[in-house]
Amino acid sequence: MNANVKKVDYAVRGPIVQRAVQIEKELKEGVKKPFEEVIKANIGDAHAMGQRPITFFRQVMALCTYPELLDDNKFPEDAKNRARRILQSCGGNSIGAYTTSQGIDCVRHDVANYIQRRDGGIPSDPDNIYLTTGASDGIVTILKLLTAGEGRTRTGVMISIPQYPLYSASIAELGAVQVSYYLNEEKCWSLDISELQRALQAAREHCNPRVLCIINPGNPTGQVQSRQCIEDVIRFAAKENLFLMADEVYQDNVYAEGCKFHSFKKVLFEMGPEYSSKVELASFHSTSKCYMGECGFRGGYMEVINMDADVKAQLTKLVSVRLCPPAPGQALMDLVVNSPQPGEPSYQTFMKERTAVLSALAEKAKLTEEILNTVPGISCNPVQGAMYSFPRITLPERAINEAKAKGQAPDMFYCMKLLEETGICLVPGSGFGQREGTYHFRMTILPPTDKLKIMLNKLKEFHQKFTQQYS
Amino acid sequence: MNANVKKVDYAVRGPIVQRAVQIEKELKEGVKKPFEEVIKANIGDAHAMGQRPITFFRQVMALCTYPELLDDNKFPEDAKNRARRILQSCGGNSIGAYTTSQGIDCVRHDVANYIQRRDGGIPSDPDNIYLTTGASDGIVTILKLLTAGEGRTRTGVMISIPQYPLYSASIAELGAVQVSYYLNEEKCWSLDISELQRALQAAREHCNPRVLCIINPGNPTGQVQSRQCIEDVIRFAAKENLFLMADEVYQDNVYAEGCKFHSFKKVLFEMGPEYSSKVELASFHSTSKCYMGECGFRGGYMEVINMDADVKAQLTKLVSVRLCPPAPGQALMDLVVNSPQPGEPSYQTFMKERTAVLSALAEKAKLTEEILNTVPGISCNPVQGAMYSFPRITLPERAINEAKAKGQAPDMFYCMKLLEETGICLVPGSGFGQREGTYHFRMTILPPTDKLKIMLNKLKEFHQKFTQQYS
Ligand SMILES: Cc1ncc(COP(=O)(O)O)c(C=O)c1O
Ligand SMILES: Cc1ncc(COP(=O)(O)O)c(C=O)c1O
Repeated sequence: MNANVKKVDYAVRGPIVQRAVQIEKELKEGVKKPFEEVIKANIGDAHAMGQRPITFFRQVMALCTYPELLDDNKFPEDAKNRARRILQSCGGNSIGAYTTSQGIDCVRHDVANYIQRRDGGIPSDPDNIYLTTGASDGIVTILKLLTAGEGRTRTGVMISIPQYPLYSASIAELGAVQVSYYLNEEKCWSLDISELQRALQAAREHCNPRVLCIINPGNPTGQVQSRQCIEDVIRFAAKENLFLMADEVYQDNVYAEGCKFHSFKKVLFEMGPEYSSKVELASFHSTSKCYMGECGFRGGYMEVINMDADVKAQLTKLVSVRLCPPAPGQALMDLVVNSPQPGEPSYQTFMKERTAVLSALAEKAKLTEEILNTVPGISCNPVQGAMYSFPRITLPERAINEAKAKGQAPDMFYCMKLLEETGICLVPGSGFGQREGTYHFRMTILPPTDKLKIMLNKLKEFHQKFTQQYS
Repeated sequence: MNANVKKVDYAVRGPIVQRAVQIEKELKEGVKKPFEEVIKANIGDAHAMGQRPITFFRQVMALCTYPELLDDNKFPEDAKNRARRILQSCGGNSIGAYTTSQGIDCVRHDVANYIQRRDGGIPSDPDNIYLTTGASDGIVTILKLLTAGEGRTRTGVMISIPQYPLYSASIAELGAVQVSYYLNEEKCWSLDISELQRALQAAREHCNPRVLCIINPGNPTGQVQSRQCIEDVIRFAAKENLFLMADEVYQDNVYAEGCKFHSFKKVLFEMGPEYSSKVELASFHSTSKCYMGECGFRGGYMEVINMDADVKAQLTKLVSVRLCPPAPGQALMDLVVNSPQPGEPSYQTFMKERTAVLSALAEKAKLTEEILNTVPGISCNPVQGAMYSFPRITLPERAINEAKAKGQAPDMFYCMKLLEETGICLVPGSGFGQREGTYHFRMTILPPTDKLKIMLNKLKEFHQKFTQQYS
C-alpha cells in the first residue's frame, strides 16, 4: 500500500476521539462511569454542540431541494428569490444536476461581489473563484497542484506550529516536505518574520520551499494577525518567491477588542502594484465556521490571485476529474456571501440570529481564558478569534515519565486520563505540534455557556488532582 | 508544478465541452448559428436533461434541511419518519454537523441491509461500508491507498479500454501505471479473460499490476456482464492476486432482454469460501445514476471486502483528513437504499416515478441503437445498460488526414464539426480509449425521447454529409 498514506496523522479524529465514541457506546449500554455524558470539545462542529442553524439559510436550502415549496406562503419572498436564482443557474433547474467543475456561475459571481465588498472595493474576478467541497478540498487541491520535484528539489510547504493537522496530513500524503515555523506563544501566538526566515533557510538545505501557509484567525491557537504582520508576511513571500495560502475560514470569528480581520487579498492590493501584480495567493473560505457552522454541507470557495495562466488551466482540469463540489454546499456558500440585506423581509431575524451566535462565542472566548488562567499549571493566551483555546499545561515529571514508558505523548496521556475520568474530550497539543518540552491541549469554545462552565470547572478539578497525584 | 497533474486528461469535460459552453454564450448574445440550442449528450447528468427528481427523496431532504416542516401536514408520514431517523443520527440533530468520517452510522447500516437484500441474503457488515462524496471520491481513495512502489515495482492498475476517464486521470495524478485491457467490440463489448491475461503479462515486464477495475454495467460502452464472465474475472483476480474494484454505479440501469445485473460481491460469495475468504474487493455505488440521477448531491458508498485489517485502518485514517462526505449526499444515499416499502404512503408514487424513468431509458436505449444502425458508416452495439451508446464510425481517409494535419484526433475533429454545425455535443471515442485505427463517439441516451429522435436524425444527416464531403 501507499507509504505516504501510512505517514499521515490526523489528531482531530485520532485515537482519543475513537475512545470517546467507544465510551459513549459503553454509557448507552449501561456501563457505570464517573460521568453521565461525553462532552466533545475536540472539533469545531457548532451544530453538534447545539448551535441552531440560521433560519434563512435553511429555508432557502429547503426551497432549492423541494421547489414545490415555492408556492407555500410560509416562506418569505427573499428566501424564494434566492432559491429561484440559484435554481435558474443549475442544469435543468435542479440542485441534483452536476454543476460546472469550478462551481455554479451565479454563485461564483456572488462570491466575487462579496470579496469586493469585504475588501473595500478591491475587485475580484469570478474567473478566479473555485467552489470547493469544504475548505479542506481547496487546500488539498492547491497543495497537490504545487507539489513537484524529487529529493532536494521536492516542494517544501511552510506551516505554522501549532497547525491545523489537515496541512501536515496532506503534505505527508502528497510526499511534499513539511517546513515548520513556530508561532510565538509568549506574544499571543504571533508570527515572527525572523522565525519564518530561520525556517526557510534551514529548509533550503534539503528541499525547495515554495509555499507558505497561514491560518488567520488561527486554529488551534485562536490568535488574530495584525495588519502589520500580514504586510510583513507578504513582503517576505514576495522576496522569497513563495506561493501564499491564506486559510481564512474564521474570518467572521474575531472577538478580542482591538482585533480586526484583515484579508490577505486586501492587504496585498493595498501594498501597491509592486506586490499585487506579483505575489501568488490562494485564500480559502468555508460554510463550516463563522456564525453559520454548516459543516455537514461541505461548502467552500477559494480565490486564486496571480496564478500563472498555464498552472490555472491545470487547476481547472484537475478539479474537473471529480466532476463538481456538492451543489447544496455551493448554494449554501451563495447564501453566506449573499445574505439578507436591510429592507428584505428576513433581514432582522437573520441579523438577530447571527449576532446572537457571535456574541455568545465572544463571551465564551473570554470565559474560557479567564477560568483556565485561574488554574495553577495552566496558562492560556487570549482567544482573540476562531473557536479554540490552546492552553499550555505544566505536567509533573512523574506523569511525563509514565507516559513515555507507555510510548505515549505526555499530553496524550493527560487527555486520555481526562476523558476516562470526566468524559471531556480534548485533543492533545502533540496532535498540532508544539515546541519540544511544552505541552498543551486544544479545547473548542463551542459548548453552550452553562455546559462550558461546568466543563471548565471539571477540568480545573481534574488538573489539580492530576498534578497532586503525580507530584 | 506537479508533473503528474499535467498528465491528467479528462475528456468528459474537455475541449469539446468548453467549446459547447462558449457556443451557448454566443447563442445568447445573438450570434447566428445553423441551430437554436446546444444539445449536451456528453455527460450522464439526468436532471440537466430534464429528468425530474423522485418526489419522496426531495421531500425527505427538505425535511432534513428545514425540520420546521416536520409539523407540516403536506408531507407524508413515511417521509417524516425517514427524516427523523436520519436527523437523530446527526450531531445535534442537524444535517449541518460533521458526520463521522466513514459516514453516518444509521446510513451505513441501511446500506449494509440493502446490499444484503440485493445479494440474496449474503451478509454485509456496516463496518465495511464507507460513505463517499460521489463514487468518484471512493474510487480515487482506493486507488490512492493501493498505489505504491517505484519504477518496476510501481503499482499497475488494469482498466478497460474504452474506460470512464476518471480512472486514467486518477492513475496519472497518482503516478500509478495504467494497464489497458481491451473490451471486445465484436462481442458486444464483452470482456475476454485471454485479453486480461495478455495485458497482465505485458505489464509485468515494467510494473507491478495489483488492481483490476471493472465497470458493470459499462461506461462508455453500455454492456452488461454475464454471470459467467464475472466468475471468470474473479477466478482470474484470485489466481493473479489482484485487488478488484467493481464500479457498479449503474446497477439499476439494465434494459436488454436476457441481461441482469450481478454484483461482484454476490458472485464472489456464491463461488464459495475458497474465493469469498480471499479475494479483495471494493465495490462502488452512487446517488448520481440509476433512476434517481441525483448527481449534484455527491452521494455514494463503497463496500470493502477482505481488506487487510492494517490497510483498512489506513483507509479509515485517510478518509478522516477531509473530515466527512457531504451530509445531504449521505442522507440521499440512505433514501436510495431505504426507499418506500409496500404499505407506506409514498410507495405507489415512488414506484410510478421510478418505473417511468427506467422504462423511458429502456425505450431510448433501443431507439438509439436502432436509428444509429440505419446510418451507413455507423455501427452500434446494443445498449444493454448504463446510459450511453458508443458507436463505431467509419471516417473517410481525407478527413483522417485533415484531422492529423491539425494535430487533432480524427474523432475529435468529427465531433467538433458536429458541434459547430448541429449544436450536438458528444465526446470523441479517443477520450475513452479505443483500438488503434478505430473511431467512436459516446452519446448519452438521456435527452427526452422527442429530442433524442431529433438529435439522432440530425446526427444521421451530418454523418452522411460529412462522409460525402471528405470522400
Ligand atoms: C483552519 C481550518 N481550515 C480548514 C478547515 C476545514 O474546514 P471545512 O473543510 O469544513 O471547510 C478547518 C476546520 O476545522 C479549519 O479549522
Ligand atoms: C462508471 C462511472 N463511475 C463513476 C462515476 C462517478 O459518479 P459520481 O462521482 O457522480 O458518483 C461515473 C459518472 O459518470 C461513472 O460513469
